[in-house]
Amino acid sequence: MMRRVLGLGLLALAATAQVKQEDIVKGAGEDWLTYAGSFSGWRYSPLKQINAENAKNLVTKWVYHVPGARGLRSSPIVYQGVLYITNTNSVYAIDARSGRLVWQYADPRAQKGGVNRGAAIWADKVYFTTSDNYLVALDRHTGALIFNKKFADIEQGTTSTSAPLIAKGKVIVGSAGGDSGMRGFIMALSAETGDTLWKTYTVPAKGEKGSDTWGDLIDYGGGAAWLSGTYDPDLNTLYWTTGNPWPDYNGSVRTGDNLYTCSLLALDLDSGKMKWHFQFTPHDTHDWDAQSWPVLVDTEIRGQQRKVVLHANRNGFFYALDRVTGEFLRATQLIDKITWAKGIDDKGRPMMLPNSDPTPGGNWVCPSVKGATNWMGQSYNPGTGLLYVLTLEQCGMYFRSSQQPVPMKNFSGGGATEEGGQVVLRALDPKTGKRVWEYPMTGLGRMWTGTVSTAGGVIFSGDDDGHLVALDAKTGKNLWFFNMGELLTASPVTYSIDGKQYVAIASATAVFSFGLFEPAQGVEPPVIKVKK
Amino acid sequence: MMRRVLGLGLLALAATAQVKQEDIVKGAGEDWLTYAGSFSGWRYSPLKQINAENAKNLVTKWVYHVPGARGLRSSPIVYQGVLYITNTNSVYAIDARSGRLVWQYADPRAQKGGVNRGAAIWADKVYFTTSDNYLVALDRHTGALIFNKKFADIEQGTTSTSAPLIAKGKVIVGSAGGDSGMRGFIMALSAETGDTLWKTYTVPAKGEKGSDTWGDLIDYGGGAAWLSGTYDPDLNTLYWTTGNPWPDYNGSVRTGDNLYTCSLLALDLDSGKMKWHFQFTPHDTHDWDAQSWPVLVDTEIRGQQRKVVLHANRNGFFYALDRVTGEFLRATQLIDKITWAKGIDDKGRPMMLPNSDPTPGGNWVCPSVKGATNWMGQSYNPGTGLLYVLTLEQCGMYFRSSQQPVPMKNFSGGGATEEGGQVVLRALDPKTGKRVWEYPMTGLGRMWTGTVSTAGGVIFSGDDDGHLVALDAKTGKNLWFFNMGELLTASPVTYSIDGKQYVAIASATAVFSFGLFEPAQGVEPPVIKVKK
Repeated sequence: MMRRVLGLGLLALAATAQVKQEDIVKGAGEDWLTYAGSFSGWRYSPLKQINAENAKNLVTKWVYHVPGARGLRSSPIVYQGVLYITNTNSVYAIDARSGRLVWQYADPRAQKGGVNRGAAIWADKVYFTTSDNYLVALDRHTGALIFNKKFADIEQGTTSTSAPLIAKGKVIVGSAGGDSGMRGFIMALSAETGDTLWKTYTVPAKGEKGSDTWGDLIDYGGGAAWLSGTYDPDLNTLYWTTGNPWPDYNGSVRTGDNLYTCSLLALDLDSGKMKWHFQFTPHDTHDWDAQSWPVLVDTEIRGQQRKVVLHANRNGFFYALDRVTGEFLRATQLIDKITWAKGIDDKGRPMMLPNSDPTPGGNWVCPSVKGATNWMGQSYNPGTGLLYVLTLEQCGMYFRSSQQPVPMKNFSGGGATEEGGQVVLRALDPKTGKRVWEYPMTGLGRMWTGTVSTAGGVIFSGDDDGHLVALDAKTGKNLWFFNMGELLTASPVTYSIDGKQYVAIASATAVFSFGLFEPAQGVEPPVIKVKK
Repeated sequence: MMRRVLGLGLLALAATAQVKQEDIVKGAGEDWLTYAGSFSGWRYSPLKQINAENAKNLVTKWVYHVPGARGLRSSPIVYQGVLYITNTNSVYAIDARSGRLVWQYADPRAQKGGVNRGAAIWADKVYFTTSDNYLVALDRHTGALIFNKKFADIEQGTTSTSAPLIAKGKVIVGSAGGDSGMRGFIMALSAETGDTLWKTYTVPAKGEKGSDTWGDLIDYGGGAAWLSGTYDPDLNTLYWTTGNPWPDYNGSVRTGDNLYTCSLLALDLDSGKMKWHFQFTPHDTHDWDAQSWPVLVDTEIRGQQRKVVLHANRNGFFYALDRVTGEFLRATQLIDKITWAKGIDDKGRPMMLPNSDPTPGGNWVCPSVKGATNWMGQSYNPGTGLLYVLTLEQCGMYFRSSQQPVPMKNFSGGGATEEGGQVVLRALDPKTGKRVWEYPMTGLGRMWTGTVSTAGGVIFSGDDDGHLVALDAKTGKNLWFFNMGELLTASPVTYSIDGKQYVAIASATAVFSFGLFEPAQGVEPPVIKVKK
């Protein structure tokens, strides 16, 4: 159901602009064109009107409440002064200067439920996926439906939650639902038609390479791909992460490494062919999905300049891999307390410690099931040369049940609990993997949000008590905070209109936009009248 | 279910303060102690840190999302730095400086549904009523339940939505549900125990005085009392309004004036005895509840100083009555277009025009069923001597159905539609009833909110497009606005902490607090830890 709210006039000037490959390659600027701001996954903006000196003058510019929203996970896309944010099976186009609704689209067909992490934009269309695996393409000016095409069957236990990544006209989508005993995949669909271009499974079929790392349950192995990946245009390679093997907590029914779960996959954009893989957590039994996006940085490691992919993993370690070859370069501790492995060996394999596996009575393990970090997203800042990652110092109990697994039902073979916990924003040096500074966040260790950093030397991130916080990117000093009044479960972005920089983030139920204080002009927006 | 969030320390200094009669008589100041800010119903504050010159520097100070809220109607109470806001069957105590939750209470027993217009405070307790007619008293520091006492039976078609008014230790509550064929009432309950002190019905019993203005349906006559009233401590008199007769749109089954519906009642606080009544709309067939609160002003009318009660009515007229005797003094047009009456005669009775009654085919009447104004609340400012009323220029169709009425079911005997419409904030002179200036609000005429005005010469009110707006109280000039991003259906209040003035208002789902811009100090609130 599309509903137009503002007139066409608002967008008339921008009517001919089209989002092209080179715009996204260029990365964030006035616009924020892809989930992580750039193909490299930096969540970085070259904007610097807001800086470490004047961040204290930030104020809320507008708020838009997303009707019926609960726990928004969506990171906005911004293009030509319009901000696009998704909720489950719906998109809202909001005037990014005033917060007024331009149009909204709610899929009249889609089945209910599930979260959604955002939209994508390409040419003159806005894309999102529904919880029941349709790719929806809308006219970006009007919200009019262009197409609505099914790419996977929800009856197979697969849903869709991630923001699509669009490169060279290919819409890359992945599967969610890895706790249900489905078989994970990554797909490329045509941005023009929604037709499938390729589909790569994250778990091999019986008899295929890697299938010897599984037992009988291989057809339901999980390995969901529920978070957007990143992309290197020079290598024409996608970097995509995979989730836990199924059933999550009961490894006894799936002996072996369970490839390619809890891994990073390098795929050729054109064919979907796997160039290499790296498994962070072989035979995972702690629900440590590898969903935390791969950050592509060129840096010196042990004296050698490398094309690197950085990965902060739920399992507690921070990895650097060669992104051309997949070679393991280094792993360091992301959090202080890790009890399941004494470290990562020089092949990149964890050196396991005993009493870490879930048991019927429970085993106390660090990190907790929430992981040392999670999907919300780190930021790499080329100005400071640092990667900013929200981490969670938390341990928990892991249980294994004796129930028999039933594929395509939400059955995880056990469970986990956690207690207390401290969220810490850490600035890591990609060269060494070591911490430069850290900032303990306010809150109860319940949930947390992503980060964005800017050329202005500011990091924006949420604490887990509902505050958006601005920190000095060099020192971690708290510059400013604002109480948004509910748990934040999404990541901020930044954009600029007519030389004015804004920072936008979704709270659980609303979108907030912030900018530098200016006295009001006291001219209210015009009366909108549709009928006399 | 009471949940404590912040420590006791926050409120330790204020632990001995108690709200007393003289505090409420004094009216709003640093605190906002009763629904309308004062017993007189002024929604006026003597605060003046925010004024017409600096209102352009207003910014959002914090936002608190009320979990699960939809269409909040609640006007906050503020005492000693804590803001109390209600949702259906629940209260939230919020640190009024930071927006952080102090405690919350949700009635574990109450039946679901219905809106709630706010809490009341007395001594050291916070009070609210549940949708199923319980008076709940809570410890204001902790949210601990003191008592929870039933005062009416929801099976009789009666619910409770208004904020209680507390005077001299008597908690005054009224009945909602007038569209269901119930019998309206106003009650006084003991603030100490919740026990009933008196109950006055708004529709006489058969045989009682006024019962000759009804037919057979008198037992289900409606006359709900769903909005807080006002109180004159010198006269010890309550001024309370009543709603439509039942069934709403079909007057043929209830010939006569249908006393005391659509009226203003003057009741003795101690006994509940009716001192006088004034009926604005005899035999109403347009759902023109008289719910818009009575504003008590001492002013000169036609050369004579009077104790006056002002009333802006849904039916399109603005009334002045002598509040000692109930004598009709004057009625003027509140809106431009009124088609059902050519005016009010010198006894205060409307001079009816033909073709105004609902019919099976529908009759087009102005004002619409939403009324020329409604419950959201006007503000009287002693500085300017003006009353600020949000009015709605809108007409609509009124239909009568041929269905038989069934008492205690939601049956209104017809219906109404409306189209377009323009919300206009009007400044009225109580001396003459005439407009001094008017300000047309942005929006679609869908819904609207109340007003507050201050000694700083500023009026705060919401447009019907989601903006909080500051206007110059003298001229109506727009000084500032902020897009809160959803329809506003509640009224603002203002308060002060440590010399800093705030303005708070609920949007549909959240509470916002505003104040003058100050650069941030960059010291985030302390980490709250309940468990290690």
